[in-house]
Amino acid sequence: MNEKVRETIFRKVGQEPFAQKFGIQLLELEEGYSKVGMKFTPDMENFLGMAHGGALFALIDEAFETASNSHGTIAVALNMNITYISPPSPESNLIAEAREFSKTQKTAVYDIKLHDEQGHLIASCEALVYRKGTPLPFLNE
Amino acid sequence: MNEKVRETIFRKVGQEPFAQKFGIQLLELEEGYSKVGMKFTPDMENFLGMAHGGALFALIDEAFETASNSHGTIAVALNMNITYISPPSPESNLIAEAREFSKTQKTAVYDIKLHDEQGHLIASCEALVYRKGTPLPFLNE
Amino acid sequence: MNEKVRETIFRKVGQEPFAQKFGIQLLELEEGYSKVGMKFTPDMENFLGMAHGGALFALIDEAFETASNSHGTIAVALNMNITYISPPSPESNLIAEAREFSKTQKTAVYDIKLHDEQGHLIASCEALVYRKGTPLPFLNE
Amino acid sequence: MNEKVRETIFRKVGQEPFAQKFGIQLLELEEGYSKVGMKFTPDMENFLGMAHGGALFALIDEAFETASNSHGTIAVALNMNITYISPPSPESNLIAEAREFSKTQKTAVYDIKLHDEQGHLIASCEALVYRKGTPLPFLNE
Repeated sequence: MNEKVRETIFRKVGQEPFAQKFGIQLLELEEGYSKVGMKFTPDMENFLGMAHGGALFALIDEAFETASNSHGTIAVALNMNITYISPPSPESNLIAEAREFSKTQKTAVYDIKLHDEQGHLIASCEALVYRKGTPLPFLNE
Repeated sequence: MNEKVRETIFRKVGQEPFAQKFGIQLLELEEGYSKVGMKFTPDMENFLGMAHGGALFALIDEAFETASNSHGTIAVALNMNITYISPPSPESNLIAEAREFSKTQKTAVYDIKLHDEQGHLIASCEALVYRKGTPLPFLNE
Repeated sequence: MNEKVRETIFRKVGQEPFAQKFGIQLLELEEGYSKVGMKFTPDMENFLGMAHGGALFALIDEAFETASNSHGTIAVALNMNITYISPPSPESNLIAEAREFSKTQKTAVYDIKLHDEQGHLIASCEALVYRKGTPLPFLNE
Repeated sequence: MNEKVRETIFRKVGQEPFAQKFGIQLLELEEGYSKVGMKFTPDMENFLGMAHGGALFALIDEAFETASNSHGTIAVALNMNITYISPPSPESNLIAEAREFSKTQKTAVYDIKLHDEQGHLIASCEALVYRKGTPLPFLNE
């Protein structure tokens, strides 16, 4: 993929306040592919003492956002469908990987899987973007 | 609805670290219905400077979690389908309302709408839980 | 709504081979709204002797297709999320209603509910279209 | 997989009136995997002259039903999320493959892809079942 795009997205995610709230890190980025990681800590629990769906979604969404913008043009989320499979163990390191399996001029679709470090599947997501075609705005910052 | 359940869920959401990350407040709670609010602040932006999908989802998920546990027994999220409609304006006050439209012994389904204070629709979600039937664990704390 | 569009869609559905396979009838059509009906007959059962998900979907999809094209311009399905709630009784008359709850220049979103004649909810669907903007091709046939 | 289950499902699909409406054939069946085929014929068009979403869904649903019942116990559809990617060409031979990627005691989740014979992706689906645990009723017929 374009090195400038990759470098810029890594830098932008490193500065993103949302990613910092959850300690999310971008680990790998290719065109149409992204891998992100996060440690599941007690501040991500819901009032039942389980992982908050919103914390798991945060990691999935970061994988989706970076993979769908990896072509260097703006992609906007239209729809996400998430299925929760089994809750993560406390203190586990979570990994989300987004893989593009369709790209047309206007849309692209991603399969996103959330695993723990032992490879147990935590959640799965299918997600659709609208591709605006305009270049990412910050490439020349 | 059962007053003890209501009071306890209000208290628990008030203490939830996840809700505090986003400044989410529980506004109303009835059996099968919940209304939550959050101010969209700059720390919720993604690297394109738009609202992070994960921040919008956080509010939707809090409405879902509180509505689906409002019967006093544990409900576990199985599936959520979110459609993004239009991005919120900076500093807008966002409201998510979850309404149960089906409840059987084992499952329940919710329609969740995310609006800004002018009533513009930001996102819509249909969400499914598995109802375990066991009472919420913290009612006698 | 435009009377020519309404009349044409009624005529087209009446001639549609797919609708005839299931005995689907268009009952009402307004801009952004459609109501269709079908009798659940034994040839719609799956090999477990229950209503085939594909038969229930057929009725839902016909409501979606007619509602989303009711503005007189072509709408193309992007995503549908269906939740099955309870199976219909044999020989029951099924009704699907599609209601548009969002319409922008490029997209529109529909809530579609499938009921039997007693009002029991059989299935629910949230569905998204891409709006091409070009007029329906057969209005001047 | 259990040969009796395989044989029985092949026979049952061969007799299913719904499958016959669309000329759907079961091609392969393993535990957690199914492959089905159908020719896209003019009677499957919608009133815009494109493939009816309900016809594409019929094939996807048949793959889902056979894969999810391949363990020999009853599985009931809870949720399906379908994304339409590109319409099939007239007279093309369509193939749907369902692959189970998660199975717990109570639920299982499937990735279902619909292709034409050239391998073009037509639609993608993620689908969730509730596993009742009771044996398929017709194994001893």
